[in-house]
Order: sequence, then C-alpha cells, then structure tokens
Amino acid sequence: MKVQVSRKAHFNAAHRLYRKDWDDAKNKAVFGKCSNPNFHGHNYDLIVSVTGEIDQETGFVMDMKVLKDIIKKEIEDEFDHKNLNTEVPEFKDLNPTAENIVVVIYNKLRSRIPSHLDIEVTLYETARNFVAYSG
Amino acid sequence: MKVQVSRKAHFNAAHRLYRKDWDDAKNKAVFGKCSNPNFHGHNYDLIVSVTGEIDQETGFVMDMKVLKDIIKKEIEDEFDHKNLNTEVPEFKDLNPTAENIVVVIYNKLRSRIPSHLDIEVTLYETARNFVAYSG
Amino acid sequence: MKVQVSRKAHFNAAHRLYRKDWDDAKNKAVFGKCSNPNFHGHNYDLIVSVTGEIDQETGFVMDMKVLKDIIKKEIEDEFDHKNLNTEVPEFKDLNPTAENIVVVIYNKLRSRIPSHLDIEVTLYETARNFVAYSG
Amino acid sequence: MKVQVSRKAHFNAAHRLYRKDWDDAKNKAVFGKCSNPNFHGHNYDLIVSVTGEIDQETGFVMDMKVLKDIIKKEIEDEFDHKNLNTEVPEFKDLNPTAENIVVVIYNKLRSRIPSHLDIEVTLYETARNFVAYSG
Amino acid sequence: MKVQVSRKAHFNAAHRLYRKDWDDAKNKAVFGKCSNPNFHGHNYDLIVSVTGEIDQETGFVMDMKVLKDIIKKEIEDEFDHKNLNTEVPEFKDLNPTAENIVVVIYNKLRSRIPSHLDIEVTLYETARNFVAYSG
Amino acid sequence: MKVQVSRKAHFNAAHRLYRKDWDDAKNKAVFGKCSNPNFHGHNYDLIVSVTGEIDQETGFVMDMKVLKDIIKKEIEDEFDHKNLNTEVPEFKDLNPTAENIVVVIYNKLRSRIPSHLDIEVTLYETARNFVAYSG
Repeated sequence: MKVQVSRKAHFNAAHRLYRKDWDDAKNKAVFGKCSNPNFHGHNYDLIVSVTGEIDQETGFVMDMKVLKDIIKKEIEDEFDHKNLNTEVPEFKDLNPTAENIVVVIYNKLRSRIPSHLDIEVTLYETARNFVAYSG
Repeated sequence: MKVQVSRKAHFNAAHRLYRKDWDDAKNKAVFGKCSNPNFHGHNYDLIVSVTGEIDQETGFVMDMKVLKDIIKKEIEDEFDHKNLNTEVPEFKDLNPTAENIVVVIYNKLRSRIPSHLDIEVTLYETARNFVAYSG
Repeated sequence: MKVQVSRKAHFNAAHRLYRKDWDDAKNKAVFGKCSNPNFHGHNYDLIVSVTGEIDQETGFVMDMKVLKDIIKKEIEDEFDHKNLNTEVPEFKDLNPTAENIVVVIYNKLRSRIPSHLDIEVTLYETARNFVAYSG
Repeated sequence: MKVQVSRKAHFNAAHRLYRKDWDDAKNKAVFGKCSNPNFHGHNYDLIVSVTGEIDQETGFVMDMKVLKDIIKKEIEDEFDHKNLNTEVPEFKDLNPTAENIVVVIYNKLRSRIPSHLDIEVTLYETARNFVAYSG
Repeated sequence: MKVQVSRKAHFNAAHRLYRKDWDDAKNKAVFGKCSNPNFHGHNYDLIVSVTGEIDQETGFVMDMKVLKDIIKKEIEDEFDHKNLNTEVPEFKDLNPTAENIVVVIYNKLRSRIPSHLDIEVTLYETARNFVAYSG
Repeated sequence: MKVQVSRKAHFNAAHRLYRKDWDDAKNKAVFGKCSNPNFHGHNYDLIVSVTGEIDQETGFVMDMKVLKDIIKKEIEDEFDHKNLNTEVPEFKDLNPTAENIVVVIYNKLRSRIPSHLDIEVTLYETARNFVAYSG
C-alpha cells in the first residue's frame, strides 16, 4: 500500500548553457541565446515526490515538515539567488541544463532521504519546459 | 492501447491530525499546529485518473459525466463542508492525514468503477503538499 | 508616478458562517452548509497590494521583505491553522464571511503600513470565490 | 540514467462528439450537449514528454527547440483554429473525443521523434478533463 | 466601506470572427485564422465582480450562491457548448470578439443584479488574451 | 463604453539589485541576497492592458496580433535571455527593481501604442511578487 507524497519548493537563479571546453562561438552555435555569456535566469519550481508505505503510527509516508527542511537546506539554501555556473560547485564542470540540474538535485536529496523511500524530482525551468528524474 | 483519463474535483473541509489513543500533548508533539484541537481546514483538490482501453463505439475510456457523478456522490457529497474527524465515518478511528484520506477516497471509488479499469487518485491538501495512490 | 506592488501569502483555517444571536436553524437557513456547526475550512490565499511613489534611493515602493514580515506577523501567525470563529478575537462577535475577513485583514495591516501608502487586500476563499477591499 | 523532458503547447479548435454512422438523435443520446451539430470548442493544452538518456555532449535528452518546432509543425499548424471534425483528416471517420485526439497526436509525433526516445502525450480538453497516452 | 466580491465561471463555445456584411475574403484579411468559416473554439473563463456595502445582517455583499445561480442561468445555460455565431441571438448581427462578448455578458447580468451594486465582468478567451468591462 | 483588453507575455532574464554609486557592502546591506554580484534571475510574466472604445467596424479595442507584435519587438526581443544590468541600456544607471522595470516597460510601450488608448502594465517577478503601473 505505497503512497506518493509530494512537496513543492522554488528557487531563483542565473545560469547559461555552456561547456568550458568549447569556445563561445561553439557554445552559441549549439545553445543559442541560452548561452549568453552575461547569463539569464529563471524562477525554478521544484517538486520532490517520495514514495513508501504509510507509517501506521503517524499516518505519514514522511513528515512533510522534515522533507521541507531537507529541501530548504540541501537545495534552496544552495541554489536560491545564486549563479549556477559560477557559484554552485556541482556545475563547475557540468553544463547546467534542466536535465543536469534535476539529476544533481536528485543526488543531493537521495543521500538525505531514507533509502527505503523512492524519490522522484520534477524541475520546472519555465511554465513550458520541465524535466523529471527518478534515479 | 490504454489511455488514462482524468477528472478534477474539489471539496472544502475541516480537520486536525489526531490520534484518539494519544493525549493532546503527544498529538501536538508529533503533529504540531496541524493538531490544533479547534481544527483548521483546507480546499482539497482531487484528481481521479482512470486507465483502460478506448471503447471503439464511443471513443471513451469512461464517460466523464459518469465519472463526475460518481465522484460527486461518493466523495464531494460525503466530504464537502464537513469536519473530517467528527463527521466522516471512515476517520472515526483513522488519523486524517493526506495519505490516509487519499487511500480512503481510492477505496470508495474502487468499488464503484468497473474493475477492468485501473484507477489512481491524487489529492492536493495545499498547492505545495499533495499525495497520490493507485492501489 | 505611483506604482502598485503586491505580495501573495496564504493561511489555512477552519470556520463556519454563524451569528451567535441566531439559533442553528436560522444560521442554517441563511448560510446553508457553510454554517455546519462542526466547521469546514479553506486554504485562504491573500494578496496585499501597496501603492505609492518609487523611493529614488532604493527603487522600491516598499521593501517586499518588510511587507512579507508584516503579513507574517499580523496575519499568518494569527490566522494560520486556527479556527477563525473560536480562536481569532476579531471574529468573536463578527461572522467570518470572506467580506468580513478581508476588512479585518485590511484594518490589521493598515495600522502597520505607513499612511502615505495606499493598500488593497484581495482574499481568495476558494479558486472560484474571492473578495477585495481598499478602505 | 533516463530523464523525462516535457514541453507544453496549445491550440484552440472547434469539435463535436459525433459518429457519422449514427443519426443526430443517437449522437445526442450518447454524447449529450457535446454532440451539438453546430459545434463547440476548447483551448486544448498539450504536454509532450520525451524520455531518454542525457546526451553527454549537450546535456540534453532532446533539444527543446527541436521538440517545440516538431510540435508546431505536426500539431499546432494542423489543429489550431480548425474544426477538428471537418478540417483535420485524421478525424474524418474518427470521433474526436479527447481519448482519440491524444492517440492521433501521439502517432503523429511518434513518427517524428527518434525511436530510442519514449514519448507520452497529455492533452487537457478543459482544466477539469484531461487524458494521457504513451503508446 | 465597499467590498468587491468575485465569482468565477466558465463555458466552452465555438465561434468565428465574422461580419455578415463583409465577404469571406475581407473577413479573412481583417481577422486572419480567427475567421475560419468552419469555426474554432475556446474554454472561456469568466469572472463576475460585484461591489457594494457589506450587509450587516449576513456579512455578505451578495450571497455567492445567488450570484452563481444568476451566472448559470443567464450565461452558462445560454453560451455553454454552443456556437456563438449561429446559436446565441445576441451575436446574430454582432461580431463575437472577446470585447463584444464581455459587453453582452455585462448587459445580461446588469439587468439581473440589484442596481445599487456595481459590476465588472472579466472574460478570458485564452490564458493569454482577456478583456474586462464595467459599464 | 470603454473595454480593457489584456495580453500576457514573458521573458527570462538575469539581474541584481545594485546601485553603481554604492559599494558592494552597502548594496548587500540594503538589497540582501538580491544584490549577489554574480546575478540571479527570473521568469518575468508580463500583462499589458489597453483600455479604449470598441472599434465598431472590427469589434476590437486593439488588434491583439498588433499588440502581441509590439510587445515582442519592444520588450521580449530586448529583455529575453539578457542580463538586465549589463545588456539593457535603460538599466545602465537605473537599479532593475520590479518597480523600475515596470516603469521602463510602460514607457517603451506608451510610445508605440496610440495615445487615445490608456495602458497599464503588470509585471510578475515571481508568483508571489508583482507590480503594476499605469502612468
């Protein structure tokens, strides 16, 4: 009797699509205006979904207050109002596409959420573009 | 060639997170302000998803008018403008967490929707907290 | 050159439409299921809009962090996860209709926001019913 | 390490639920007001989700600009501001229920998106009724 | 102490932008694809806002159940699942642009809502295009 | 008989709250994390509302296709995927607060929209913070 519980969060960040091992011309050819060297940015919306059995004592799969605090500490405090390319260590050598960001978020949360619970992370880069990863 | 069809509904209800076999102090220690003895409430949004083959005669997996009526009779008429703890029999001895509510809703609908159709129920307690159950 | 700045907030509360000087039968006749003596509840969404000149030094009409903190202290801390009828003093003798709630919120904020700024408060009781008041 | 990337699109169209081999009376008996011979219409919202490995060179599962262009050419240019029953060849002999429309859209996109990528199509007929198909 | 109360409603309809006194070529030149002779359609979302003093007895500006019923009878029953051009008498000789529709809706409601109350009608033709009229 | 017509648009941009005539320490003291020297960013949503008489020939206050094109040329092409502080000339010496951005957008549009039409611009910096200006 597994239930999935989900919590929304968000952060605002600057980024550019960019590979250090390519020059700006190649970055622009492949990534277009998303590779603007002066950066652009997004309001990222995040949904973290956790799946497991309902704890018969509490009626919770996982206490949402605990999940909210993990997301705040691991993701919001690290990504919000930051430049993903220059200030977030995980993207030092990794192009911050939505796909790569969602995998990084998943991995950061995976190590903090008990392993008997499955997790899925959905990341909205805009209202029209979003990605999901479940390991 | 299975298609999933979904219908949204909603109800407004009061509740508190509470176990009868715990005193108020323990309820408060575990459930925090959600256990306020005077109750609080939510606008619950509900999505009922039904998966099956398309009926070649009608082009429907299930007539949405029929599904809408089942949701109204089984869920909205029973839960809307009610106190879940004191007025809905299913929660007489069951803590009305979002997880437990979604399982109760699933079970009530499961008995009314033909068994060759799979169902999933998603329940939004707030815009930021939601749960899903598919049996 | 007046600009209006707006901030969204929310709180979850129980209430019933009810006049103490009417019996339950009359309350039910006038207010229907909204007068259920066991209460129901809502996720209230709140928009506070402040209108004034842009401060030439900061570029702000009002610092949104300051407005956010005022809303939290005056409204969210007082109303969230509460029973409006029994726990919020302003509704001791005032029927907590959306109209009366929005006027109470306006008055609480009006005394905390500098008088050279105009304010308007919009309150969503549900996604389909909402009210606005500007003094 | 498969990631799902999604792109939203939309089109506005007229339709009626209708089988040519039934007379208007039978169409009305089965499909109700949705079978109005003078048509009605919807703002259809569409989500196309593509699942696959992240390309290590670009950091993309699929370039969203490419996906956006495929959706525009295959779906929006063909369906937007059209009468689905009389102007879209796929519905010449197929009742344009949401279920049948989503399968048609899936099939049109399936032939244009590389076969190593899985796809799922979600179609909102209204904010309250939606369908999904993944082959 | 005037408060504005608002109620959302919706209807789905077919239409085309079209003047009978112009031929199809001129209609197309001016109105583009919106003038498709086979019609297209929309999910129209409607907000009806009513402004007045709070009734000291009920705490209401206007009973939302009464407003809901007026909107249903005057607008939803007349417009929903209809072809605005051919089935709604008000558009027999009036081009059903969003602007003209919102004025028609306002006039229909104005005659049913007490004259001491001000009204404003907002009509969403799509999520990106909307109009408002207050007499 | 004036009607207001509105059109939504959006752009994604990087910015920081910053005054050149203050050092980074003072900028940080006043603007907090919004003044991060490495920038952050937003998905800005924009609503442009135009008020005027309905043209009796077309049924339009203003052709939405024309308004859409003006917004694209004047705002989206200039602001989208840009760094507002370093790439948009209007903010060379003007702190890009939401208030200042909305005034800049208003002024750019005011010169392109016929003067017999009133305009109002609403700018969402996030889903929770937004501003409006009407001259």
